[in-house]
Amino acid sequence: MIYLDNSATTKPYKEVLSSFITINEKHFGNPSSLHEMGTTASLLLEKAREQAALILGVKSDEMIFTSGGTESNNSAIKGIAEANRYKGRHIITTDIEHPSVYNTVKELETKGFRVSFLKVNQEGIISLEELKRLLTSETILVSIMHVNNEVGSIQPIQEAGKIIKEKSKAVFHVDAIQSFGKVPILIENSSIDSLSLSAHKFHGMKGNGLLYMKKNLLFTPQLSGGSQERGIRSGTENVGGAVSTAKAMRMTMENMHSQNLNQHRSRLVHFFASRPEVKLVSPQQEGAPHIVNVTVPGLKGEVIVHALEQEGIFISTTSACSSKKAQISKTILAMGFSEKDARGSVRISMSHLTEPAEIDRLLEAWRKVIPPLLKGIKRNEV
Amino acid sequence: MIYLDNSATTKPYKEVLSSFITINEKHFGNPSSLHEMGTTASLLLEKAREQAALILGVKSDEMIFTSGGTESNNSAIKGIAEANRYKGRHIITTDIEHPSVYNTVKELETKGFRVSFLKVNQEGIISLEELKRLLTSETILVSIMHVNNEVGSIQPIQEAGKIIKEKSKAVFHVDAIQSFGKVPILIENSSIDSLSLSAHKFHGMKGNGLLYMKKNLLFTPQLSGGSQERGIRSGTENVGGAVSTAKAMRMTMENMHSQNLNQHRSRLVHFFASRPEVKLVSPQQEGAPHIVNVTVPGLKGEVIVHALEQEGIFISTTSACSSKKAQISKTILAMGFSEKDARGSVRISMSHLTEPAEIDRLLEAWRKVIPPLLKGIKRNEV
Ligand SMILES: Cc1ncc(COP(=O)(O)O)c(C=O)c1O
Ligand SMILES: Cc1ncc(COP(=O)(O)O)c(C=O)c1O
Repeated sequence: MIYLDNSATTKPYKEVLSSFITINEKHFGNPSSLHEMGTTASLLLEKAREQAALILGVKSDEMIFTSGGTESNNSAIKGIAEANRYKGRHIITTDIEHPSVYNTVKELETKGFRVSFLKVNQEGIISLEELKRLLTSETILVSIMHVNNEVGSIQPIQEAGKIIKEKSKAVFHVDAIQSFGKVPILIENSSIDSLSLSAHKFHGMKGNGLLYMKKNLLFTPQLSGGSQERGIRSGTENVGGAVSTAKAMRMTMENMHSQNLNQHRSRLVHFFASRPEVKLVSPQQEGAPHIVNVTVPGLKGEVIVHALEQEGIFISTTSACSSKKAQISKTILAMGFSEKDARGSVRISMSHLTEPAEIDRLLEAWRKVIPPLLKGIKRNEV
Repeated sequence: MIYLDNSATTKPYKEVLSSFITINEKHFGNPSSLHEMGTTASLLLEKAREQAALILGVKSDEMIFTSGGTESNNSAIKGIAEANRYKGRHIITTDIEHPSVYNTVKELETKGFRVSFLKVNQEGIISLEELKRLLTSETILVSIMHVNNEVGSIQPIQEAGKIIKEKSKAVFHVDAIQSFGKVPILIENSSIDSLSLSAHKFHGMKGNGLLYMKKNLLFTPQLSGGSQERGIRSGTENVGGAVSTAKAMRMTMENMHSQNLNQHRSRLVHFFASRPEVKLVSPQQEGAPHIVNVTVPGLKGEVIVHALEQEGIFISTTSACSSKKAQISKTILAMGFSEKDARGSVRISMSHLTEPAEIDRLLEAWRKVIPPLLKGIKRNEV
């Protein structure tokens, strides 16, 4: 089995699973309990928080553990919008956000907020000029993803942050769920006010996310209850999840500078450039190293996915969460591709654990199974 | 170590942890992915959903997996209130709800909803007469907990449900987080529209909850994104968590009819009745079998907890999530106890895994360490 769907989810590290088990077997106390089992759990949780904070270069009381990337994005965006609504009702985001951002701002539109969507160019990158033009004194929140999950384009978040702070009082939220461990994230001395991560995207476990929230940010908590996580995120803390997430962060960072991913990406980009049936969708250069999106105009993405699956290779149509619904990728349309192109697109997404031999196998399988499909198509147009 | 803080959290079953590991090692795919890894994950998730539904006697498309009890309560209450607000703005709940309900309705109060709080009697039970009186055509939601987490009182939810449906069009939500596996929960043919569970309270894992939502209930999802869980709860599904939760439910139900807990409870109630320094806070009869709350007027709960901890016995002051904040229990005050009584209260909470010998040790330790503390107090009044 060759797993090249790492942007959908990754295989948890063995060490991450074993930490999780140790905590759940030996240190299962509720961090709020006064006795030793509680104190131990609480210490473990705070140590995990410090580790996570250290890796991101932030203070530990700026890190909130959540149930995943979707919760982190929802909480940040709704919590910031709600707390700042008396200052203004304008929100800026991009045309290519993940649904956990896109649908959240769409929901806010129905609640009296006005949302502007930044367009992207053919490489899937926003225009800083457009951002400058859209910012007003009414803008309370700008949410820009770091790395796009479908095509791997990288947004200029440092420059965007500077512009946002020069031109407005808006809070700047970054969805860094696809970038952590792949593209450096600099929070210190940046203009980023809040940032989301999701553990299962970097060999941690599903059901665990992180939210960086700059100290003293105006914020309305979205989960009410026992006031855990400094009141920002109530609910009994998933201590094992937090410890495992911090461990996955550390292990991922240790591997970040291996050149594997860049080499794989170059090989793929080269290979696809030589294939007459293929158009590259991801940026040619400067895309995130783990994502290569291509389209075979005339084929359907699903057909390509299933053909490669027969060869034991698992890839994906655009993003996982919409792939079952066979929607057309709005990201790829926003980049100026046609509907036909968008329908034929597939995403190959790697991890630092991907081996060169796996890429060999993919290229071999592609050569073998894709051209025959196209022959079928000629007769039988989609 | 004798762990008698099972209402704060429980030790996960070994089998639950091993299912979790198997899923995370072998079937870590994203249920939304089109390839075989995705399909397998999706099948496992749906099987877990069916198992959970079967145990509760509901349909599988009425079960939503969440990140815990706090999320289940927040989602249900906010989601129902938001979707039904055009029908009315009145909510009824009780004086003794868990903060994940209490603080949620308090938040709704600031958003234009009117909330009535049902009082409880000395046994911690609401009055059905008062419920009848409070229901109006404006009432859109009634939220009543099944078993109270601090004292173990059991609310007459079946009767309450009937009254709610006779007298109003309100939706009926039940927080059954402390009752699952301890006190039978009947949803089928009841008037319950939504119900919350939390896995870590029945030897499942933290970070996992369930929400039963009757089909066709008007509801506004609280997490927007990839539309997982039939659009009700977006976010990549924690498949391992869901499978483990269903397993913990099954294992817990298999043990539900052991008489252990009832025997332990009777022994404790008897023992405390014989202790001059102790007042029973939990209902004498008919309380949930796993919770015994007592007070030693004049002592502080924390002092009792720490004294027993020296003997290797872990109990708790009132509820875990407020115990670090040394707040006075509003539940115990609502039952008519004085502030002094409330300050001295502790909760002993058991599981079906609690052994008779552990109760022996508790009684022995109590006799040994509590009277000397009281002697100290006579000189040194709190
Ligand atoms: C860019 C991006 N944002 C948000 C999410 C949502 O995160 P999660 O799967 O943890 O809910 C994902 C992945 O699904 C993503 O790729
Ligand atoms: C009655 C009750 N409701 C809700 C909760 C919250 O559940 P969770 O700890 O899963 O957030 C708890 C426990 O903390 C509880 O005892």
